[in-house]
Amino acid sequence: MPNPQLDANGGLIHLLSTEGLPREVLTHILDTASSFLEVSDRDVKKVPLLRGKSVFNLFFENSTRTRTTFEIAAKRLSADVINLDVGRSSTAKGETLLDTIDNLVAMHADMFVVRHASSGAPYLIAEHLRRARREDVHVVNAGDGRHAHPTQGLLDMYTIRHFKKDFSGLTVAIVGDILHSRVARSDIHALATLGAGEVRAIGPQTLLPTAIGRMGVRVFNDLAEGIRGCDVVIMLRLQNERMNGALLPSAGEYFKCYGLTPEILSLARPDAIVMHPGPMNRGVEIDSGVADGPQAVILSQVTFGIAVRMAVMSILAGN
Amino acid sequence: MPNPQLDANGGLIHLLSTEGLPREVLTHILDTASSFLEVSDRDVKKVPLLRGKSVFNLFFENSTRTRTTFEIAAKRLSADVINLDVGRSSTAKGETLLDTIDNLVAMHADMFVVRHASSGAPYLIAEHLRRARREDVHVVNAGDGRHAHPTQGLLDMYTIRHFKKDFSGLTVAIVGDILHSRVARSDIHALATLGAGEVRAIGPQTLLPTAIGRMGVRVFNDLAEGIRGCDVVIMLRLQNERMNGALLPSAGEYFKCYGLTPEILSLARPDAIVMHPGPMNRGVEIDSGVADGPQAVILSQVTFGIAVRMAVMSILAGN
Amino acid sequence: MPNPQLDANGGLIHLLSTEGLPREVLTHILDTASSFLEVSDRDVKKVPLLRGKSVFNLFFENSTRTRTTFEIAAKRLSADVINLDVGRSSTAKGETLLDTIDNLVAMHADMFVVRHASSGAPYLIAEHLRRARREDVHVVNAGDGRHAHPTQGLLDMYTIRHFKKDFSGLTVAIVGDILHSRVARSDIHALATLGAGEVRAIGPQTLLPTAIGRMGVRVFNDLAEGIRGCDVVIMLRLQNERMNGALLPSAGEYFKCYGLTPEILSLARPDAIVMHPGPMNRGVEIDSGVADGPQAVILSQVTFGIAVRMAVMSILAGN
Repeated sequence: MPNPQLDANGGLIHLLSTEGLPREVLTHILDTASSFLEVSDRDVKKVPLLRGKSVFNLFFENSTRTRTTFEIAAKRLSADVINLDVGRSSTAKGETLLDTIDNLVAMHADMFVVRHASSGAPYLIAEHLRRARREDVHVVNAGDGRHAHPTQGLLDMYTIRHFKKDFSGLTVAIVGDILHSRVARSDIHALATLGAGEVRAIGPQTLLPTAIGRMGVRVFNDLAEGIRGCDVVIMLRLQNERMNGALLPSAGEYFKCYGLTPEILSLARPDAIVMHPGPMNRGVEIDSGVADGPQAVILSQVTFGIAVRMAVMSILAGN
Repeated sequence: MPNPQLDANGGLIHLLSTEGLPREVLTHILDTASSFLEVSDRDVKKVPLLRGKSVFNLFFENSTRTRTTFEIAAKRLSADVINLDVGRSSTAKGETLLDTIDNLVAMHADMFVVRHASSGAPYLIAEHLRRARREDVHVVNAGDGRHAHPTQGLLDMYTIRHFKKDFSGLTVAIVGDILHSRVARSDIHALATLGAGEVRAIGPQTLLPTAIGRMGVRVFNDLAEGIRGCDVVIMLRLQNERMNGALLPSAGEYFKCYGLTPEILSLARPDAIVMHPGPMNRGVEIDSGVADGPQAVILSQVTFGIAVRMAVMSILAGN
Repeated sequence: MPNPQLDANGGLIHLLSTEGLPREVLTHILDTASSFLEVSDRDVKKVPLLRGKSVFNLFFENSTRTRTTFEIAAKRLSADVINLDVGRSSTAKGETLLDTIDNLVAMHADMFVVRHASSGAPYLIAEHLRRARREDVHVVNAGDGRHAHPTQGLLDMYTIRHFKKDFSGLTVAIVGDILHSRVARSDIHALATLGAGEVRAIGPQTLLPTAIGRMGVRVFNDLAEGIRGCDVVIMLRLQNERMNGALLPSAGEYFKCYGLTPEILSLARPDAIVMHPGPMNRGVEIDSGVADGPQAVILSQVTFGIAVRMAVMSILAGN
């Protein structure tokens, strides 16, 4: 089966996952994002690259934050953005997902930004477009189930490259609920492709995937042990629903074992950076002393995130 | 009483219903739509005809699909589009419909796209504007109660004309819940004005209006009998709420009697086209073998729908 | 403590309240609004003053009407407008208000239009931006708790100046639920600064603030007595929740005592104007004979409101 993200010439036609994307493609996206970073600093924060294009935000799972980043990115590229509140729309009336897509394609959609609770939904759409020979319509995965969140993975890579220049030799720790995290998966695949020295997965046994060893990461259940000597610490958000489930005793106990405090952080390299995909649960997975401290680059991630999404949309649209 | 849709010179000022619109007006809209069809195929899908105009989507009844088609049409005309989630707004706070309209007119609204559960609501607004001598503010009915859905009626006419060239001599069947269908009413009036040869209404007695004979259509309760020799078959959506009401035994039994299968469709003319306003209930009113088959023009309807809505808005705005 | 609304040179950087704004600043906003009034009358209702700027509507309290006026104003200035449905977003996921703000600033937000149920929330944001030395990001208070609604106050001043020319010598009555009204507070402060002759607060004792005497207004519990000889009558909306609370017996009794009828209005000066911030409860605080009568300037307020909001946004953005 051909790579569903690439056309016959190796050009990016959909962004579904960081997994399976060649190093040159990842690097091209990061390099393109650099050039867009400057656009958001201008007095007139707009370029006409997607003028007259119709970008549809299809959020089957609600996420105001992520939708907003894509909406801003698309508007700064001058696209027409249409937000579909899909929970309340035709799919709720019994229409199939692919009938909804066919309808929007018939309205001359150029791009779908898709968030879905089911892993694989964006692939299903991309495969459907391939069968319909509509390579001119593009899919961006904005998070599917536990599977992937590639723009978050890419903006994390952009952030690491920005602050650390080179991936080789870096030790990167990912801390928290890796089991349910599409961010962690997207980061791990991208770090492998970009040649990071060592990737560590740190968390309680109940929140680590059973087959995590096969992903080429070192597993730690102890935060102090795992963070020692790291260059990059990526904290994951602890979803509220985990805290009152069977997987964790309580938010307080989680913080005691896996919350990142200045003391614990001092075990990492002195120039280590701290990342978080947001929104943060202060006092649950991260202490305010770290979140607001000099090593946190969490807001830089947000800024880079807009540039990375502009880059992805622009490349997909053929620029 | 003068025709509320036309000004003193016979020009279109509101689109409220296909009923009462002269043949030249209908034909002018369809011809204008032809010219807009090409805009959506361009690389930059935009024309500046409504630049700086404020178009308000006033959906008192929720319909993401229909709202989206008007939003796309207005944005491709370069209008500023404001979506009002009216269910959550001032009318919910006890303000009258006409006070809401007066307020938006005071904000210099140029056009209202109105969907309302009550038949006649868009007429009420148009009449109110007439009394206020605001002929520069326009109303488009996006569906009112069981009464009318004129842009759907017009896009259906566009589709028929596109595939069949001429209305005279055509036999058109409308199948399903005609009693509750504003689409059926808008189609029947437009077909009469455009001179269709014969219009047939096919459905169970409980879902046909009692006075349907007076609308100039032939009534059939048997699908096989009614569809025989037809050139055009328009399937209607069966609303979920009908299925568990007193009007119908079950969705399964409905499909057995009125679901369009390839076998039943073979009774129509071999070059018959199949239409559906969407969203489809596959396996209820239409079989997937028909919906995805070579005679279905359902997605063409969607594409034409954008062009027709652009044409209506553009004509109303005086272009 | 310096005035949080003004920079070191006395220029407006945030609009948080009419209180504490010097007369020249108020007058400058009103004068600027005059020039924008004409823009909304043009065929192309757009000026490029905020092109490429990102304006965020942050409505923590739902208000479709007010959000719409800001959205229209920003779009007519050519800004990119992003509506955040904050009730459903990250703050609902446990993120703090200031973390949300930091994130949006990191996305290069230029302006926040904030409505919040808590008095002081927009101040908190402005103070946070000051500490972060982000004087290039601006806050407009679109209503905070019972505290202030400065753009409503300013549009009321615009309306009074438009119809009465000069503030000195005017007697202005504010009638109704002054206790819970941010509009009343914003009006009273602005009227004082602009030098209105006399301001009267009229309402039942239970709906007047205990310390109202200190605000420099004359208090009346009797409508007929209070309205006598007034030049301007500002009616306040009676919130539904007051009517079935302990503060008022019933809507019907309220109307008998404080509803503005043509008879009562005849006690004011013959050229008195009647204002209302909308949405109106006809038959509760105002009779239709007044609302639709020749002395009502309620829809002019709406028109002026767009121009005033354009003026505020334009001045904040540095034009």
